[in-house]
Amino acid sequence: MTTPLPPAPSSIRPGEVPFTLDPAGADDARLAFIGRVRSFHRSRAECPKNLREARERGGPAHVEIAEAFRPALAGLAAGQAVHLLTWLDGARRDLALQTPRHSAEPRGTFALRSPVRPNPIGLHLVRITTLDIEAGLVGIDAIDVLDGTPLLDIKPYFESVDVPPPLPERPAGDEAR
Amino acid sequence: MTTPLPPAPSSIRPGEVPFTLDPAGADDARLAFIGRVRSFHRSRAECPKNLREARERGGPAHVEIAEAFRPALAGLAAGQAVHLLTWLDGARRDLALQTPRHSAEPRGTFALRSPVRPNPIGLHLVRITTLDIEAGLVGIDAIDVLDGTPLLDIKPYFESVDVPPPLPERPAGDEAR
Repeated sequence: MTTPLPPAPSSIRPGEVPFTLDPAGADDARLAFIGRVRSFHRSRAECPKNLREARERGGPAHVEIAEAFRPALAGLAAGQAVHLLTWLDGARRDLALQTPRHSAEPRGTFALRSPVRPNPIGLHLVRITTLDIEAGLVGIDAIDVLDGTPLLDIKPYFESVDVPPPLPERPAGDEAR
Repeated sequence: MTTPLPPAPSSIRPGEVPFTLDPAGADDARLAFIGRVRSFHRSRAECPKNLREARERGGPAHVEIAEAFRPALAGLAAGQAVHLLTWLDGARRDLALQTPRHSAEPRGTFALRSPVRPNPIGLHLVRITTLDIEAGLVGIDAIDVLDGTPLLDIKPYFESVDVPPPLPERPAGDEAR
């Protein structure tokens, strides 16, 4: 009989700094999982690091919506762009400064899109490819999370609010900078 | 001595349909509030309905980051576009179909940006106007939530993942449709 190994202690890379409290212990509000992402990404090693990488690799994905929440899909359509919000349940939550693999310098968590954050909510702008409301199946063009990742929300993309606002005009005389 | 009135029973507009369960009772995951939004919107009646309306009206806003989370602001800069995630704590969570005031027909919650949703997380793409990391103050160009709304996350906007993916090319011979 073998005993499973205990989880490895949380490791810190050079330059990384934890918060003075672990947000994983907070209970300021509670979430309801509305479904799960289904992807071909079965391990962290093979999971694309972002949506661009997921699209370059190709490979479809979909989300499965729990039965109770399916009526709320009415009005969505294939071809539409939507934001998915996911709960990145495997991510630690306690790092203020972190050093991603692609980065030489540690950076603040809020300046990164890393899954490691006080509230590990993933934001993914995808396009709906197929839609079966009765079965609760929403096909999407690509996704950058592990198979089984819980889903929190689907929000339609609107150009009126989802395009960055213009930079403020520079004051006169500022052209030389 | 007066007794406060009990809360009004949840009202349903014509065509609106509740979920078969109330997501407010779920406990699938727990959140940590990292700060608060400070805006001039003190009541629902005077709160802009979306970011476009907030920008048209003008009026600055900022977010206050709790002390423990301020180190995670390192690497952000004034001028940068960021997504804010908020917890819309005044919103009911139990409607599958809803009829917004501007809409004649009820629509599915996931086809709307209404604050009423199973997980009332607000998504707001704003521009940082000022940044004081030590004080935990992030000035933003506009916001469409009430003063005091809890903040969950700040994520940098990246064109590589935050622009909708192109529509798939139509198959040959499909031009007439």
